[in-house]
Amino acid sequence: MVQSLNDMLVKRVVEQALGEDIGRGDLTTDTIVPAHLRARGKLLAKQPGRLAGLDVVRCCFMMLDPHVDIVAHFEDGDDVCAGDEIMRFSGNARALLSAERVALNILQRMCGIATATSQVVERVKEYDTKVIDTRKTVPGLRMLDKYAVRMGGGVNHRFGLDDGVLIKENHIRVAGGIKAALDRVHATVGHMVKVEIEVTNLEELEEALTCKPDAIMLDNMDLEQMREAVCITSARCLLEASGNITLDNCVDVARTGVDLMSMGWLTHSVKALDLSIQLEMAE
Amino acid sequence: MVQSLNDMLVKRVVEQALGEDIGRGDLTTDTIVPAHLRARGKLLAKQPGRLAGLDVVRCCFMMLDPHVDIVAHFEDGDDVCAGDEIMRFSGNARALLSAERVALNILQRMCGIATATSQVVERVKEYDTKVIDTRKTVPGLRMLDKYAVRMGGGVNHRFGLDDGVLIKENHIRVAGGIKAALDRVHATVGHMVKVEIEVTNLEELEEALTCKPDAIMLDNMDLEQMREAVCITSARCLLEASGNITLDNCVDVARTGVDLMSMGWLTHSVKALDLSIQLEMAE
Amino acid sequence: MVQSLNDMLVKRVVEQALGEDIGRGDLTTDTIVPAHLRARGKLLAKQPGRLAGLDVVRCCFMMLDPHVDIVAHFEDGDDVCAGDEIMRFSGNARALLSAERVALNILQRMCGIATATSQVVERVKEYDTKVIDTRKTVPGLRMLDKYAVRMGGGVNHRFGLDDGVLIKENHIRVAGGIKAALDRVHATVGHMVKVEIEVTNLEELEEALTCKPDAIMLDNMDLEQMREAVCITSARCLLEASGNITLDNCVDVARTGVDLMSMGWLTHSVKALDLSIQLEMAE
Amino acid sequence: MVQSLNDMLVKRVVEQALGEDIGRGDLTTDTIVPAHLRARGKLLAKQPGRLAGLDVVRCCFMMLDPHVDIVAHFEDGDDVCAGDEIMRFSGNARALLSAERVALNILQRMCGIATATSQVVERVKEYDTKVIDTRKTVPGLRMLDKYAVRMGGGVNHRFGLDDGVLIKENHIRVAGGIKAALDRVHATVGHMVKVEIEVTNLEELEEALTCKPDAIMLDNMDLEQMREAVCITSARCLLEASGNITLDNCVDVARTGVDLMSMGWLTHSVKALDLSIQLEMAE
Amino acid sequence: MVQSLNDMLVKRVVEQALGEDIGRGDLTTDTIVPAHLRARGKLLAKQPGRLAGLDVVRCCFMMLDPHVDIVAHFEDGDDVCAGDEIMRFSGNARALLSAERVALNILQRMCGIATATSQVVERVKEYDTKVIDTRKTVPGLRMLDKYAVRMGGGVNHRFGLDDGVLIKENHIRVAGGIKAALDRVHATVGHMVKVEIEVTNLEELEEALTCKPDAIMLDNMDLEQMREAVCITSARCLLEASGNITLDNCVDVARTGVDLMSMGWLTHSVKALDLSIQLEMAE
Amino acid sequence: MVQSLNDMLVKRVVEQALGEDIGRGDLTTDTIVPAHLRARGKLLAKQPGRLAGLDVVRCCFMMLDPHVDIVAHFEDGDDVCAGDEIMRFSGNARALLSAERVALNILQRMCGIATATSQVVERVKEYDTKVIDTRKTVPGLRMLDKYAVRMGGGVNHRFGLDDGVLIKENHIRVAGGIKAALDRVHATVGHMVKVEIEVTNLEELEEALTCKPDAIMLDNMDLEQMREAVCITSARCLLEASGNITLDNCVDVARTGVDLMSMGWLTHSVKALDLSIQLEMAE
Repeated sequence: MVQSLNDMLVKRVVEQALGEDIGRGDLTTDTIVPAHLRARGKLLAKQPGRLAGLDVVRCCFMMLDPHVDIVAHFEDGDDVCAGDEIMRFSGNARALLSAERVALNILQRMCGIATATSQVVERVKEYDTKVIDTRKTVPGLRMLDKYAVRMGGGVNHRFGLDDGVLIKENHIRVAGGIKAALDRVHATVGHMVKVEIEVTNLEELEEALTCKPDAIMLDNMDLEQMREAVCITSARCLLEASGNITLDNCVDVARTGVDLMSMGWLTHSVKALDLSIQLEMAE
Repeated sequence: MVQSLNDMLVKRVVEQALGEDIGRGDLTTDTIVPAHLRARGKLLAKQPGRLAGLDVVRCCFMMLDPHVDIVAHFEDGDDVCAGDEIMRFSGNARALLSAERVALNILQRMCGIATATSQVVERVKEYDTKVIDTRKTVPGLRMLDKYAVRMGGGVNHRFGLDDGVLIKENHIRVAGGIKAALDRVHATVGHMVKVEIEVTNLEELEEALTCKPDAIMLDNMDLEQMREAVCITSARCLLEASGNITLDNCVDVARTGVDLMSMGWLTHSVKALDLSIQLEMAE
Repeated sequence: MVQSLNDMLVKRVVEQALGEDIGRGDLTTDTIVPAHLRARGKLLAKQPGRLAGLDVVRCCFMMLDPHVDIVAHFEDGDDVCAGDEIMRFSGNARALLSAERVALNILQRMCGIATATSQVVERVKEYDTKVIDTRKTVPGLRMLDKYAVRMGGGVNHRFGLDDGVLIKENHIRVAGGIKAALDRVHATVGHMVKVEIEVTNLEELEEALTCKPDAIMLDNMDLEQMREAVCITSARCLLEASGNITLDNCVDVARTGVDLMSMGWLTHSVKALDLSIQLEMAE
Repeated sequence: MVQSLNDMLVKRVVEQALGEDIGRGDLTTDTIVPAHLRARGKLLAKQPGRLAGLDVVRCCFMMLDPHVDIVAHFEDGDDVCAGDEIMRFSGNARALLSAERVALNILQRMCGIATATSQVVERVKEYDTKVIDTRKTVPGLRMLDKYAVRMGGGVNHRFGLDDGVLIKENHIRVAGGIKAALDRVHATVGHMVKVEIEVTNLEELEEALTCKPDAIMLDNMDLEQMREAVCITSARCLLEASGNITLDNCVDVARTGVDLMSMGWLTHSVKALDLSIQLEMAE
Repeated sequence: MVQSLNDMLVKRVVEQALGEDIGRGDLTTDTIVPAHLRARGKLLAKQPGRLAGLDVVRCCFMMLDPHVDIVAHFEDGDDVCAGDEIMRFSGNARALLSAERVALNILQRMCGIATATSQVVERVKEYDTKVIDTRKTVPGLRMLDKYAVRMGGGVNHRFGLDDGVLIKENHIRVAGGIKAALDRVHATVGHMVKVEIEVTNLEELEEALTCKPDAIMLDNMDLEQMREAVCITSARCLLEASGNITLDNCVDVARTGVDLMSMGWLTHSVKALDLSIQLEMAE
Repeated sequence: MVQSLNDMLVKRVVEQALGEDIGRGDLTTDTIVPAHLRARGKLLAKQPGRLAGLDVVRCCFMMLDPHVDIVAHFEDGDDVCAGDEIMRFSGNARALLSAERVALNILQRMCGIATATSQVVERVKEYDTKVIDTRKTVPGLRMLDKYAVRMGGGVNHRFGLDDGVLIKENHIRVAGGIKAALDRVHATVGHMVKVEIEVTNLEELEEALTCKPDAIMLDNMDLEQMREAVCITSARCLLEASGNITLDNCVDVARTGVDLMSMGWLTHSVKALDLSIQLEMAE
C-alpha cells in the first residue's frame, strides 16, 4: 500500500485553482447555460500512460456540485491505453463546464509525472535501485507531484526542508568539513530525523562513512566512481546517485549497485499526458 | 512595454512556496549555519535561453532577508548564453540557503516557458500571426506562466473564465446553435467584454461571422481549411488557429494568414531551463 | 439570461460578514435561546422595490444552519410592493437570530441598488442607451453591487482594473497623447481585451476615433457636445456618457444617442430598501 | 480623545479592497505607465463635509508604494469646504494610479457617514441626547463605518453580537417575558457585559425597570410615549430612542429627554461625500 | 443556561490544529491502514474531573470523517469518575487514528481548566463571590479556555481588549490620575461598554468610587484591606479581588465579601485531565 | 547549536494571538493613551527559571511598532534568578500596552516548559538518556512548545504525523502484527523516514528487533522490564521509555540504560514561569 493523498491538502489546492480560474465568475457558462441544467461527461485517455490524481478530479467537480455523480473505471496507478474511458460523471452542467479545465490541468500534469516515473521504474525493475524524486516540484503542488511519483512506482525523497537533513556542499563548507557537519547535526537533531550528506568524490565518501549518516548522495559521479563507491560503502549506509540521470542511462546507473537514483526532471520538466473531457447536456 | 507582474501576486505565490518547502523550519540549515552568518552567491545560466521571473527570485530572497543585496546583470526578456552570470546577491546565509530551491523552481519554469515561446515567435517573426497561450497553466501560477509567455514575445489569451467570453462546443450545443449562443451573450455581457467562439468547420465559421464576434477559434482545422477560413473571413474578425501547433508546423500555420495561433504545450509541458545558484559563505 | 452570482464568492462574503458580526459569539442569543429550539420567519417588503440578493440571504442562514428550510415567493429581478412576503424559512432559532442582521444588511443594500437602477432603466427604456455602473462600489462587495445593477436592468462596466483597459486623462498624459496611449495599448494587450478611452472634448474624440478603440467615454460633456459626438462618431465605436447623470437628466442624455450612460451614485450612494424579517419561535 | 482606528484592521480591509480591484493586475496602468515613473497628486473636497478616513487613504497608497510621501492639511474630524486641498502626496506613478479608486471609494463613504452624523449632532447639540449608530453597516466595513460615526460626533452602540447584550422582542418571547429574559442574562453573563432590552410600550418599560438593565431601547415610540418613558424611568437606567429618527425630527426626539437616539440610516443609506484626486506625473 | 461555544470558532481552531499535526499527511496511518477500514472507539476518563469540550472532539472527528457516528454518555459540565466511558464513536479508521491526538490535546486541556475551576467554585459556594478568569489564556484558544471556565462554574472577565475597559496602573499614570482616566473614558466610550479600574490602596479606591466605574479591581490587597474596601464601597460598584488567589486561600478571600475573585492560573498553568481514547478496528 | 525558531511561523502565531486579544481595537488604551506617546519598559523575572521565547516577545512588540527599540540582557537557554531584568524596550506607548499581555502569555508558557525540561535534564545529566517531548502540545503552538523543550536541554520527538513513522498498538492490530506492520512500512516509505514502533512487553520487543526499526518505544514498562529490554536490544536500535515518567523517577529510568525518555507533561501540563512587564511613559 502506498501513502495516499491527504484530503485536506487536495481540497486546498483545488479551491485555490478553481478560484484562480473562475475569478469573478465564469462569464461564458453563467451567461449561456441555465442554472439547473444537468450534464454528463466522460474522461478519456488520448495517449497511453499511468494514472494519478483521479481524486483531484473528483474534488474539482464536487467543489462546484457537491452532488455530482462519479463512476471511475480505473484507479490511480493503473495504466491506460489511448481511447480508454477513465471515468464518467453527471451533475450540474455549469459546475462541470466551469471545473473542466482546472481538473484537466492538474490531472494531466500528475499523469505526466506518473507516466515518466513508471517508464524509468520499468527499465530498472530487475535491479534493487529505487527511483526517487527531488524537491524540484512546482510551488504549491509538491504533495501532488510526489504522490504522482509514487503512483509511477517511484519513492519519495524529503517532502521539505523540515522532515529530514540533507547536508549539501555549502553546509559542509560552513561547518568546516564533512565530519564537523555530521557531528553537529547528530548532536542536535532528534532521533526521528534521518541524515543524508552529499559527496563529490571518493575521499569525501570515506570521510562521510566514518560518521555514519543514514544516506550519502553521490553528486554527479560517473559510473565508474559509483561502482567504486558501492564497493567502499559495502552497505554501511544507503547510496543515492544524483545528477544527469535519464531514461537512457538509468539502467547503467542501476547496474552500479547504488540504492537510490534521483531525477529532478521527473517533476521539473513534465510532459502533460493527453487526456480529454467530453461533456454532453442531459435533455 | 509589456504588462509587468503584479507585486502582490508575486508575494503571495512566493510566500506560499516558501511555506510549502520550509514547513516547520529548515532542519539542515538551522542546525549547521550560524544565525548571523552572511553569504554571497550568483545565479548562472547553464544553457542558453530567454529570462523571465527575476523579480520572483528577488522576492524569494527578500522574504527571508529583507536586507538582501541584489545586482542583476540581465533583465526579463533578455537572452542568456550558457555560463552567463545573471545576478549576484549577498545577504544572510540561512536566508539564501533556505530560499535557493524555491527560487530556482519558479525561475527555471518561467524561463523554460519564455524560452519555448521565444523559439516559436522567432520562427514566425516574418508573419503577422501572433503566438498566444491558453488556460492550460499550472494551478496557482497562471499569472507567472502568462508573464513568461509575454517575455518570450507571445501574447496572452484570457486570464481566466471571467475576463472574456469563449464559447465552446458545449456552450453552443446548450444554447441551440452558434447564432443563439452569440445572440444570448451579446444581449447580456457588458461593453468591455470580448467574445470569441469556437468553430470546427467552414459552415460554422460562416454562421458565426454573421453574428460579429470579436474572434473565432478554428478548432483543429488543417492548413487548407485555415486558408479558406482566412479568405471567407476577410478580416471581419480575428481568427485563432488552435490544436496541435508545434515548433515544426508553426510556420505553415502562420503562412495561412490566421491572426493568432495558440499552443497549450507552451505552459502545460514545460522544460525547465537549466540554471544554478552558487553560494559561498562570507568570512 | 443575466450572469448569475458566483456561489464561491457569495460564501466568502457571507462568511466574512457573519464573522465580523458574531465575533466571539452571539452573547444574547446563546444565553437566552436553547440550542435546539426551532423558529420560523418571513422576509417582508416594507416599501416597493426591485429584488436582488435572495441567494445571499439563503447563504447567510445556511452558513449557521445547513438544514434550514427556505421557500421564496419571489426571485431576483422581481418587483415587490410594500407588504409582500418575499420568503419564508424555518430552522434552528439561534441560527436565524444570529444571521438576521447580516442577511438584511446585505439584502437591503443590494435591493437598494437594484431599485435605483431599475428607476433609471425604466425612464430611458424607449431609447437604445444602456444604463451602466462604475467601479465606485463598496470594498469587498463589488460583485454583489454589480449583480444588483444587472437585476435592476443595468449592464456592467469593468469588474476591475484587470479585465479591460480604460485609458484616463492621467494615462494619456504619461503616454504623450491619445494616439500614443492607444497605440501602446493595442501593441501590447491580448486580443480578448477591450479598450476604452476617456475624452473631454470633440478634438480628442476625433483623435481617438482614428485609433479605433472599442469605446470612448465622453467625460462630463454637456448635452450639445454629446449630440455632436454621436454625429462625429457615426457608430464607429461605442460612446459612453459619464459624469453628473441623474434620474432627472437621464432621459435627456439618452436622447443624445449615446450608447451607454454610467452613474457612480447607483453604487456609491445607495439608499437601502426597507425590508424586515419577522421571526417566531416554533412551539 | 476618541477611539482611533486599529491599524491591523485597516490594513486588512485595504489589502482586500486593492486585491478586489486590481485582481490579476492593472492592465491599463501597467501597460502605459513606466515602472519607475513618479507622480504627485492632491486630494480635493468638491463639497463641504466632515473628514473621516485619511489613514485609510494613507494605507492604500503605502500598500502599493511603501515609500510614498504624504502631507495632510486636515485631519479626521475636521470640516472642509468645497475646494479645500485635503492632502498632497507623491510617489510611484503606477502605485498612485492603481490605488486611487479604492482610496476614494472608502474615503468618500466614511466622509459621507461622518458628515451626516455631524449634521444630526449639530442639530441636537443643546440637548444631552447622544447620537448613536446601529449594526446596520456594510459587511466587512463595520469598524470603519463606526469610526466615521465617531468622527461625526456620534457615539457607538455595540460593535457586534459579542460585546454587549441587546435583548430584542424575539429573545423576550423565547425566554417567556421580559423579567425572565433579563434574569437569565444577569445570571449568566460576566460582570463586564452591559445589558440592554427593547420595549415597545410603557408597561414593558415598567417591567424592565424592575430588573435593572443598563439601558432600555424604546422601539418606535412616539414623542409622547418617549416623554412618559423618561418620567417613569427617572434616570434609573439609560433610555435609547430607536426607529424613524431623521434629521427633521431629531430635535423633537432629543427634547423628550432620552439619553440616546440611534439611527440606522447613518450607515445603511450613505451619501458619498464628493471628493477627487488629481494626479500629475513628475517630469 | 451558560453561553455555548461558537461553532465557527471551534471549526477554525480544529482545522488549524489538525493541519498542524497532520501536515503533509499521516505517514503511519496512511501507509498501514486501508482507506476504507472502519473502526470504533471510546473516550475514557482515567481520573475524576469536570467535562468541557466534547463538541471539540466531535468536530475533530467530523472534520476527517463527516459521517462519523458519535454517542455521548455525558455532556459538558458533568463530573466524571476514573473509568467512566464518556463517549463512543465509530467511523473511518484513518480518520479516527489521525484525529485522536489532536482531540485529546484540546479536550484534556479544557477539562483540566474546568476541573480546577470547579474545585475553587466548590470551596466558595457558600459565599456570593464569583470565580472569574483573566486574559492569561493560550494564544488562539481563548474562547475554549473561557468556555471551560464557565463549565467549571466560573464566570468570564473580558474576552479581549475590545469588549470592555479595564484601566490599569499604566493607563492611570498616562491619564494623570484615576479621576482623569475615568472621566476620559466615560466621555468617550459608548453606553454598552463597562468600565473597570485597578486600584492598589484604599485612597485610590475612594477616588475611584467618586467616578462611578462599573467595577474596581483590588490589586494584590491583603485580606484586611479587602474587608475595608468592601465596607468603604458598600455596594456602590463591584469589587474584584486579584493577585495570588489559590485553592488554599480562596475561602478567606470570599469571606471578605468581594464580589469577584480572578485567578490567572486557572488558564495559564493548566494541569491536563487524564483521558484516553481506545480504538479497535471493525472486522 | 540548537535548531532555532522559524521566523515565519513566529510571525503567524503572534499575528493570530494579537488579533485574538485586540479584536476590534484596544478600547482602554486607544481611549486613554495619545497616539504618539512613547513608553519604555522592562521584562522582569519574578522566579528563577530557564528562558525560551525572547524572539516571540520581540515579534509581539514589532508587530504593533516596527520601530520599537529592544535590548536583551539574556538570551534563550539562559537561566535567570528572581529579580533579573531580562530585557528593556522603548517604543510607542499604545503598542507596548496593547502587546504586553500577549507577549507574556506566550513567553511565560515557553519559559515554563523550558524550566521544567531543564529540571529533568539536570537530574539525569550523568546518564546517556536523552529527555524528549511528545505531540501532546497545545494546538497552534507546537513549534514554540518544542523549541522551549530544546531550550530546556531536551530533544524533540516527531514534529507531526508527517515527519516520521510511529507505529502504535492500533496500527499493529490493523496490520496483523508487528512484523507485518514494519514490513509494510519499510516497503513503502522513503529512505529519509525513520520508523519507530511501540511494544508493551519483551516478546513484542524481540519480534520488533528482527525487523530493524530505527527505534522502539517501551510503553509503560516497569524499571525491571526496561533493564531487560536494554540487555536484549544490545544497541541494535534506540529504546524510548514512555509513560508515567516524572521528576521523581526519571533518574531510575535513566539508570536502566534506555536511550530516550519521553514525557507528555512537559508540554500538556505547563506551569507558567512568573514574569512581569513594567512600563513607564516617557515624558
